[in-house]
Amino acid sequence: MIVAVDAMGGDYAPQEIVKGAIDAARGDGIEIILVGPEEAIRSEVELYDISNLAIHMVNSDEAVREGESPVAALSHQPDASVFVATRLVKEGEADAVISMGSTGATMVSAIAILGKFDGIRRPVMGGSIPRFVTNTMVFDLGGNVDCKPRELLNFAVIGSVVVRKMLHISNPTVALLSNGAEEGKGNKNVKDAYRVFKESDLNFIGNIEGHDIPAGKANVIICDGFVGNILLKFCEGLGDSIEEWLRHKLDKNLTQSEIDTITSELYTATHISDVDGGGIIYGVDGIALVGHGRSTAPLVAGAIRHVKRAVDANLLETLKSELTKIQGLEE
Amino acid sequence: MIVAVDAMGGDYAPQEIVKGAIDAARGDGIEIILVGPEEAIRSEVELYDISNLAIHMVNSDEAVREGESPVAALSHQPDASVFVATRLVKEGEADAVISMGSTGATMVSAIAILGKFDGIRRPVMGGSIPRFVTNTMVFDLGGNVDCKPRELLNFAVIGSVVVRKMLHISNPTVALLSNGAEEGKGNKNVKDAYRVFKESDLNFIGNIEGHDIPAGKANVIICDGFVGNILLKFCEGLGDSIEEWLRHKLDKNLTQSEIDTITSELYTATHISDVDGGGIIYGVDGIALVGHGRSTAPLVAGAIRHVKRAVDANLLETLKSELTKIQGLEE
Repeated sequence: MIVAVDAMGGDYAPQEIVKGAIDAARGDGIEIILVGPEEAIRSEVELYDISNLAIHMVNSDEAVREGESPVAALSHQPDASVFVATRLVKEGEADAVISMGSTGATMVSAIAILGKFDGIRRPVMGGSIPRFVTNTMVFDLGGNVDCKPRELLNFAVIGSVVVRKMLHISNPTVALLSNGAEEGKGNKNVKDAYRVFKESDLNFIGNIEGHDIPAGKANVIICDGFVGNILLKFCEGLGDSIEEWLRHKLDKNLTQSEIDTITSELYTATHISDVDGGGIIYGVDGIALVGHGRSTAPLVAGAIRHVKRAVDANLLETLKSELTKIQGLEE
Repeated sequence: MIVAVDAMGGDYAPQEIVKGAIDAARGDGIEIILVGPEEAIRSEVELYDISNLAIHMVNSDEAVREGESPVAALSHQPDASVFVATRLVKEGEADAVISMGSTGATMVSAIAILGKFDGIRRPVMGGSIPRFVTNTMVFDLGGNVDCKPRELLNFAVIGSVVVRKMLHISNPTVALLSNGAEEGKGNKNVKDAYRVFKESDLNFIGNIEGHDIPAGKANVIICDGFVGNILLKFCEGLGDSIEEWLRHKLDKNLTQSEIDTITSELYTATHISDVDGGGIIYGVDGIALVGHGRSTAPLVAGAIRHVKRAVDANLLETLKSELTKIQGLEE
């Protein structure tokens, strides 16, 4: 199991990226390829004792420059660290790639270099919001706005495979997120998608509402990335508000350390992108993870472990074969 | 100050409605007109000592029948309690109307009987989610799906007046809820609305993201009712999840009564429609409140106090004059 790590991507690159990668190599026996300008990476790596660890280095340019359009960067700066790291997966030198750099650049890199699966129009991201619920994932959390019903169907097919392989649920239920449970509730797009979902082979249970997400009423919950992004961030913001209120409420009854334990658990449950170290991009022909720019070493190590689980679960091959099966449904 | 109360609407009508109305009359010196079949109402009222209270009764048919289309009901059952109660406002016999019955029927009643303000295409509802934030209201929470940019602008104009009069903020900031803060972020509709908002006289500060809602980053936050409904209910569901987790966490450290106090405060903060007793329908020519079907007497009394605040703030006249001013902006 080899993970290519974009050592130059992220607010704390290369220091925290290198540290997190070495921690993952040490703790989980994962083979790591650090990608970045050789000098810069070597001087970071030399701070640690890496004897007995499988840490390699591959030379590259710096990260994609701030403010550069990711698509333009691919032609202007083809040897930027994220592109070189992604090519290692394409060429079979690594099983997965992670980057804590620009989300756009990682997404473009995954799509352009790894390629989308046949029939997939737009890759999708997903997660459990909040983390209290362990049998549900919401897709798309990746910012795909203005999705057509067929694209939502793609998300649902991918989501069903991901939930089956990653959450070990054998025949996951699928629902559309709407403003009412009955058929016929929703905006135009959800109503159209309802008809498409009903005709599919998915284990479709209809519409669910906002309160059904934390209740885990469906295993795979589908919305477009506009709604998904707002929900993801609202969950974070609400977690912060409740944490602040809770600190004040518990101030007289509990010790500071007891309060810290409780609030840190609340933080973990409500800030899913911080904690996972990021999200896997589903629908491209390779395992690629977009990390959080603010990631420190523990999150980098978490991200590496996260892609390891996907590789161990044989997620990619399963997705490929499932998506081939539903080609007939595609327009 | 006279409130017409649909005594037959709601899961616990007429018992809890009558009880709540009498409580409001007693506690807040509000004059009440109970609307419903005379026999049924009278036998409820007789359970209480209402000497010195201004409680009147107006005879009507039963509530709109379950499953009946609200628009059809208006012609088949014109003397249903909600319609009769709303007509009291239209005819100047009452200052406001509340109903805990079918949302659709109350909405149709308000639009058809009170009439929409000139230039208003769709009435709007709003509220603070969560209630921790006291300087922000989100519009629309009333289920207006597939809103055009001009409709979102209407919501923002109405929202600005509501926040000014009800939250006492003199020049409220207005923002569009989107999946990114920068101009150009959003789905097609939000991008189009951004241009319309920029040209308006609103105190428009641009896009905000999901986590900015509980942070109170803008005073008036605009989204369509599809997103608003999902957020409102997600907030409730997340509140429930966190409450359950918190009960478990605090079990060993606090007494049951201390835990109950904390969780009940959390419930209040996250279940805004339960607690207000409902929401005022803004954009119709009269004060009308849609209550929660599950409302018990305290929520009914709360709803009555809520419309009293709107009447006291002279909300309707201000809305009318502000909306007249912006007619020029309308297509």
